Amino acid sequence: MSKRISFKGKLAEFREFHTPSSGFFFLAKQRLLSEKSLFQQIDIIDTDSFGRILFLDGLVQTTEKDEFFYHEMLVHPAMVSHAKPEAVLLIGGGDGGALKEVLRYPLKSATMVEIDARVIDVCEKYFPWLSSARSDKRVELKIADGSAFIQESDRMFDVILIDSSDPVGPSTVLHQREFFEQLKSHLKPGGIVAGQAGSPLYHLASLREKSLFFQEIFKFSFFYLGPVPTYPGGTWSFFFVSDKINPLEGSKGDIPSGLHYYNVEIHQAAFSLPAFLKKELA
Amino acid sequence: MSKRISFKGKLAEFREFHTPSSGFFFLAKQRLLSEKSLFQQIDIIDTDSFGRILFLDGLVQTTEKDEFFYHEMLVHPAMVSHAKPEAVLLIGGGDGGALKEVLRYPLKSATMVEIDARVIDVCEKYFPWLSSARSDKRVELKIADGSAFIQESDRMFDVILIDSSDPVGPSTVLHQREFFEQLKSHLKPGGIVAGQAGSPLYHLASLREKSLFFQEIFKFSFFYLGPVPTYPGGTWSFFFVSDKINPLEGSKGDIPSGLHYYNVEIHQAAFSLPAFLKKELA
Repeated sequence: MSKRISFKGKLAEFREFHTPSSGFFFLAKQRLLSEKSLFQQIDIIDTDSFGRILFLDGLVQTTEKDEFFYHEMLVHPAMVSHAKPEAVLLIGGGDGGALKEVLRYPLKSATMVEIDARVIDVCEKYFPWLSSARSDKRVELKIADGSAFIQESDRMFDVILIDSSDPVGPSTVLHQREFFEQLKSHLKPGGIVAGQAGSPLYHLASLREKSLFFQEIFKFSFFYLGPVPTYPGGTWSFFFVSDKINPLEGSKGDIPSGLHYYNVEIHQAAFSLPAFLKKELA
Repeated sequence: MSKRISFKGKLAEFREFHTPSSGFFFLAKQRLLSEKSLFQQIDIIDTDSFGRILFLDGLVQTTEKDEFFYHEMLVHPAMVSHAKPEAVLLIGGGDGGALKEVLRYPLKSATMVEIDARVIDVCEKYFPWLSSARSDKRVELKIADGSAFIQESDRMFDVILIDSSDPVGPSTVLHQREFFEQLKSHLKPGGIVAGQAGSPLYHLASLREKSLFFQEIFKFSFFYLGPVPTYPGGTWSFFFVSDKINPLEGSKGDIPSGLHYYNVEIHQAAFSLPAFLKKELA
């Protein structure tokens, strides 16, 4: 995947290549930000179709209009499967979308560990949900490498959510076996780890690799799917691992009101995998 | 939606606008066909990413690589819900992908009614599955307007499948109430009508309209969803209507072997609708 930006008339055109010969284009009515942080290239544009869009290293991370698909499916299957999530750790997710969903629950603490302070700063300026989340007293923000944080911390969590970018660049380590072994040691009894697992079309090798080591580390290990219109292939995969909780046994807690995608039927449906994916992950 | 084609170096670039400011691009390694039939503009390109792609009036209809998502979900939920589908009518679907799926069942007859003979001719040349389907002795091909055919015919069917293009151009009538009232009178007892219903993101008004008249015409009326990576939004909707069969009661017949997407879990899962869609269709 790579980025290509060109200007045609007054509209900047942003592209994300999903394959070397296909992808998405967006015509930007305004280019709000383009800078290189210590970790990655950050671009934010404004569009008529999806509102504001955040790109990291040229890949769409979130858009105002369709962020709910991804963030609801990243957060709620795990949160609803836990009877009483009080301490939640969110690794990555500097755009604040996942944090917004986590804060819908009556938890005691939400710790967000984001490696790139600039992502937080610029998203606070351009995405409305982040600034209200940051002012929530339950939120603790750490600017740190997620893997280093978990190695050094002795804190324990009920739910750990991994909102990483793809397994290239600063997020590489967040996709590796050692990281998940460390996460396991930070789970309270009955704890759950969930996170994004890439495209079931384009990142199959990465799903297969995770599937193998998840089964060795955790008693319960599942993948589930949800639509994300602006991500490659339009459907995204997520993982759910736990030593105690089987998500298919249904929700333990109440579903927050005001959600746009997730509901009790979607919870069950999302864990139903297509024939090709069952075969690949068997 | 509109089409824009430009040439950059050796690669022709095909675009489909999903909104006025966003969409898909494909770089074609070869442009196999571009002509105007009596009914529509037909383009076929060859790509590294999706193999051969058929466009009608500039909109992606089918690609070699991802056609199975759409065609399996158009055909199998209805076919598997019927205990013994012997006579099947397919309206539209000139590319042959749906017909290929229908022929997996031990039926007596598959009648395909396609308005545009040129679509059939060119797809027979460029898409491998159509020519084998046409040589199947159970297949009867009619070049006719689907609505006119159903008005004039006195034949009865177990399953009727509507593989229309969007409700503009030659397919407009296939989305209207009168057409479905006529279809109902051609259903054998226990018969089912299923078909594509557009994008749950971009064609919501059309879904709402169908939902209203389906409920008045049929005892059971459902929408279901499936991913289609190359269609706008990446997720597509389908309808299932019947006076006798409730698809949620599970499959009546065996699922054919060799499918890539559809399976028994997907059948149930597909009928689970997102919160926003339940609200829109309530």
